[in-house]
Amino acid sequence: MIVDVSKKILIVGLGLLGGSYARVLKRFGFHISAITLDQSSIDYAIKENIIDEGSTELDKKIIGEADLVIFALYPHVFVEWIEKNQQLLKSGALITDVTGVKGSIVYTIQDMLRPDVEFIAAHPMAGREVSGVENSTDKLFIGANYIVTPTEKNTPEAIQTCLELGRLLGFSNVATLSPEDHDEMIGFLSQLTHCIAITLMTCNDKEDMQKFTGDSFRDLTRIARINDQMWSELFVANKTALLNQMDLFINKFNELKTMLETDDIDAMRSMMRHSTERRALFDKK
Amino acid sequence: MIVDVSKKILIVGLGLLGGSYARVLKRFGFHISAITLDQSSIDYAIKENIIDEGSTELDKKIIGEADLVIFALYPHVFVEWIEKNQQLLKSGALITDVTGVKGSIVYTIQDMLRPDVEFIAAHPMAGREVSGVENSTDKLFIGANYIVTPTEKNTPEAIQTCLELGRLLGFSNVATLSPEDHDEMIGFLSQLTHCIAITLMTCNDKEDMQKFTGDSFRDLTRIARINDQMWSELFVANKTALLNQMDLFINKFNELKTMLETDDIDAMRSMMRHSTERRALFDKK
Repeated sequence: MIVDVSKKILIVGLGLLGGSYARVLKRFGFHISAITLDQSSIDYAIKENIIDEGSTELDKKIIGEADLVIFALYPHVFVEWIEKNQQLLKSGALITDVTGVKGSIVYTIQDMLRPDVEFIAAHPMAGREVSGVENSTDKLFIGANYIVTPTEKNTPEAIQTCLELGRLLGFSNVATLSPEDHDEMIGFLSQLTHCIAITLMTCNDKEDMQKFTGDSFRDLTRIARINDQMWSELFVANKTALLNQMDLFINKFNELKTMLETDDIDAMRSMMRHSTERRALFDKK
Repeated sequence: MIVDVSKKILIVGLGLLGGSYARVLKRFGFHISAITLDQSSIDYAIKENIIDEGSTELDKKIIGEADLVIFALYPHVFVEWIEKNQQLLKSGALITDVTGVKGSIVYTIQDMLRPDVEFIAAHPMAGREVSGVENSTDKLFIGANYIVTPTEKNTPEAIQTCLELGRLLGFSNVATLSPEDHDEMIGFLSQLTHCIAITLMTCNDKEDMQKFTGDSFRDLTRIARINDQMWSELFVANKTALLNQMDLFINKFNELKTMLETDDIDAMRSMMRHSTERRALFDKK
């Protein structure tokens, strides 16, 4: 389906991610429409030739004509949208998303969805510390991962189309994971790291520390500048997996603390060598 | 004293830091000598015109002629060196160091030192992920902090000379702190961050996580590649201050975990906003 550029693509939620999707897909020649909250985003995107048309309303024509609908919304807004508006979708439409958690979303949407519309979930692991369509860019996905999380309700065709979408968007790594494996991976690699960063940033309020800050502390707290509305929602939506990862971290941290309390230098050195070896796996290739 | 380039400077321990000191100070015209373990380091440094002369032995002439001696050794090696060899130092010599912990070193050295030699402690907060004089550079200190940690045993002249040394070396921020304030600051900004990084790197050994790694995880674990001999010694040498910082971190992390367990989104958002505000203080100026 995707390679057929006569198909119409609708993006619901024209922010940083939605806008970046639009920029790339428009370049391939697809007809791109958008529905979003702010008229200024629509105006900007049309002026910049990022989309062909757009509306802040539930425009029946725009929604009813779309062959592929990409939802770039907060998780609960996405679920509410489908609940209230799915009757507007074209029969045979394929829908996908950008939601950063999967287990708490994918089954809910698939269970409530009309039988003539298919939802194939995906997580584009890309972002910036700024938001809004004005900051979108067609380079956002270079070097990044795109994860498709199919369930047994998905057709092979929809899975292939979604993988193809990831490749078209320019992601460097396109893969599939079960929703559960995805959530564990995200819980560890992304959410736990944000939990650590905001904890480090708020656990010691002593004044003037910033005078002596070096790169280590700056690196560990770069992501401590955080969108509180989005991340608190993502944490709660992935609660079980994230709590598991937090426990793994606390247990290991307490092990290290015990090593220090007992002057167990051998154990500390062994842990540091393990850390050094394992870190090499995570270097950029 | 420092601005008088007829004075002789001896560096004990010609590695990354010692070599970088030598490169900068040689450029100002000082006579630079070095004592270090490996002849290859001496040979390299003489060939590269980083030092004037050097030895792998306790050369009495080199040591006895030095007006300023900079010890760039592991903490326990530094203490042992002074215990065994301080009789070789010139009367009236000033000695300083690069040790990353202060409370457990400064008083020990000052208490055992001859009355005609003064020790003024300093911590150059600079480094690289590589070691050895071959990796030294005269640009190492740009943008970095240099902390002098005087005690009541120090003379105003020695403190001024040491501050001047930091400025000559090219540090962007030269300051004084008490040994205790220094150790608290280092415990938080440097050692705690390394504890966190090695814990994160070793707490979940699930395979293939690296396939999906993004910048957040890479940033938080860059320093998880760690010199186990040096850092385990530095942790133990700053045990009390570091354990305090680890407790502050664990307590805050457990607060966040409780917020998540109880779906307390308001508390999470408040913590995230605090984190975001506070992080702004730590931006590079």
